[in-house]
Amino acid sequence: MSAGGPIVLLTDFGTVDGYAAEMKGVLETLCPGVATVDASHEVPRGNYEAGARALERYWRRFPPGTIYLCVIDPGVGTARRPLVVESEGRFAVGPDNGLLAPMIRASGVVRVIRADLAPVEISPTFHGRDLFAPCAAYLARGGTVSDLGPSVSDAVVPAVAAPVLFGPGQARGAVTAVDRFGNLQTDLPGSWLAGAYAVEVGQHRLPVARTYGDVRSGEGVALVGSNGYVEIAVRDGSAAQVLGAGEGKAVTLIPAAS
Amino acid sequence: MSAGGPIVLLTDFGTVDGYAAEMKGVLETLCPGVATVDASHEVPRGNYEAGARALERYWRRFPPGTIYLCVIDPGVGTARRPLVVESEGRFAVGPDNGLLAPMIRASGVVRVIRADLAPVEISPTFHGRDLFAPCAAYLARGGTVSDLGPSVSDAVVPAVAAPVLFGPGQARGAVTAVDRFGNLQTDLPGSWLAGAYAVEVGQHRLPVARTYGDVRSGEGVALVGSNGYVEIAVRDGSAAQVLGAGEGKAVTLIPAAS
Amino acid sequence: MSAGGPIVLLTDFGTVDGYAAEMKGVLETLCPGVATVDASHEVPRGNYEAGARALERYWRRFPPGTIYLCVIDPGVGTARRPLVVESEGRFAVGPDNGLLAPMIRASGVVRVIRADLAPVEISPTFHGRDLFAPCAAYLARGGTVSDLGPSVSDAVVPAVAAPVLFGPGQARGAVTAVDRFGNLQTDLPGSWLAGAYAVEVGQHRLPVARTYGDVRSGEGVALVGSNGYVEIAVRDGSAAQVLGAGEGKAVTLIPAAS
Repeated sequence: MSAGGPIVLLTDFGTVDGYAAEMKGVLETLCPGVATVDASHEVPRGNYEAGARALERYWRRFPPGTIYLCVIDPGVGTARRPLVVESEGRFAVGPDNGLLAPMIRASGVVRVIRADLAPVEISPTFHGRDLFAPCAAYLARGGTVSDLGPSVSDAVVPAVAAPVLFGPGQARGAVTAVDRFGNLQTDLPGSWLAGAYAVEVGQHRLPVARTYGDVRSGEGVALVGSNGYVEIAVRDGSAAQVLGAGEGKAVTLIPAAS
Repeated sequence: MSAGGPIVLLTDFGTVDGYAAEMKGVLETLCPGVATVDASHEVPRGNYEAGARALERYWRRFPPGTIYLCVIDPGVGTARRPLVVESEGRFAVGPDNGLLAPMIRASGVVRVIRADLAPVEISPTFHGRDLFAPCAAYLARGGTVSDLGPSVSDAVVPAVAAPVLFGPGQARGAVTAVDRFGNLQTDLPGSWLAGAYAVEVGQHRLPVARTYGDVRSGEGVALVGSNGYVEIAVRDGSAAQVLGAGEGKAVTLIPAAS
Repeated sequence: MSAGGPIVLLTDFGTVDGYAAEMKGVLETLCPGVATVDASHEVPRGNYEAGARALERYWRRFPPGTIYLCVIDPGVGTARRPLVVESEGRFAVGPDNGLLAPMIRASGVVRVIRADLAPVEISPTFHGRDLFAPCAAYLARGGTVSDLGPSVSDAVVPAVAAPVLFGPGQARGAVTAVDRFGNLQTDLPGSWLAGAYAVEVGQHRLPVARTYGDVRSGEGVALVGSNGYVEIAVRDGSAAQVLGAGEGKAVTLIPAAS
């Protein structure tokens, strides 16, 4: 399977210092005219878990052939391995720290990139520019992924605590992320919300509805989020602030009868 | 009239959570190779008025055929209607909340998008991804805008308080926006500044000049801004802070004789 | 030598107000289909020194033919001159305030842009849109740089305090910038680190290593940064905060024997 682009960039570099632009320059030099797409450069410093959550959200939305260039890499230059992943026709390059886990979990084939492939001496502090970007450009030019290195089966893929379904509309899960709007993402599949009467977060009990506007301004609501999981929001407000809840907080579905 | 792109994105999504990337993935899937341009993803949450002001500034700067994909949509999933607008050869898709008002005011033809056109089940909380992006891609592939739905004449277009011209160099208007530099944008046409001796904002009286550098550092100045309206600035500072003025503040032009 | 693009944008405009989008609209209108690349719009207001440091980092990473459209321009509309620079096959347009200095220092040919070339009346407060963007588009269409104006030899190029090498591993320089990660960039060439036993910043003495992960979390380290100069970091922390150091702070290399 060959790639062909576009190359989608996901980093924690910000844009002011010029690190992201350096990578874009390498891509344009090695693969002139390649389409690059900024997913984000604003992931909080070193937070590869947040990067993985974002990648989980969109990696299947781009078509087969897309290459994700993912650099949230606090362990750069240490023994952590550089990876390339192929999963459902999409490709990703990045560090072996869990950032690429969403694509690996989906039966992705993982390879450790042979560092001797880099066209320049590799800076121990910027593999994004010197190793990952050249590999992404290689794939975008139609290069064969198996040329990049041998496949392995021991990439870092963090275990995920599974939510528990006790019965119809009765379940226990947790907040997995807080988004820019203060909405709480959970690990509870949206289909479990059928039969639930309410959702509890700490001392708060929230009604179940279809969308944010189904409750009054300032009120909380539980609904099926756009990623297919239960989401908790406060209309015109921040659920994280109003409910005092963040990542890891328990979330309970209450069935109609209780 | 057919579109053809590029597709210009305007949202309040930020980039960290991946919502903007999801929309870009949909665009690339439905219209491979389409050129996408980030206008902004950093509009303050739910602030469609700020989005409308930005769109007002640039929608005529892109060439005919451009498609604006505008998603600042706190009412998503409620009765608020999804719109497509055609105005002076440009197109826009987005919610019926005033965000697209600049293009509608310019004799734009407004249509309500038929929701059954969406290629997937529409999430009640993310029409940007499931309805607006597919419509933008449809237009970018050369689709006919009238296929998207019936035209209507009752779109949300907020009334704008008009400034008043009393005589040469004598007028009253208001601050319409504060930009990143702390400069105050007003609704006073720049041509009205001819014959004005000074501009008053609250207790402050400011000289009229051509550009920021015409006064000394820290001093205030009134000039014709780059959008053709009177703008109030403080050199090397924030007029909003120094003058204690924000949106809605009255601004008065003082003629030479007074 | 002709350009041909891409056009790389570097500004302090942010994205919310729409100024950057206005420039992109002009580019797309004057050179349909031109590839634009966002380097940054988030440079702190008016900080052309920070912009120059970023440009220094990446201007050679893009291929010959690239055009840098650089607008950090607090002196817009005053006597400060509009420039176009050609250096090692790359081009840049922007104000004569030091922003383009990295490309000028590298034997760049500097020309003052003839303002009468602008296709529209030039706003005294937005040369980025009305003068610099049209010049970038002209070059991207294959226009000849010498048509844009006469060459000059007196562009603003700030003097740089040179670091001093006293002997092997013994030198004195300064912090030139603090990046998003809180890492301290210095003006000490990386090669000088050979033979150094430690690096002193204020009261702090730091070990020399290869990469961030070579010390424990919270500890400081000096290493050769990805731009080839000595860099000072704190693992999983901010060197700027932990060491209380910012731009201009003295940095001393201590030889093994001392």
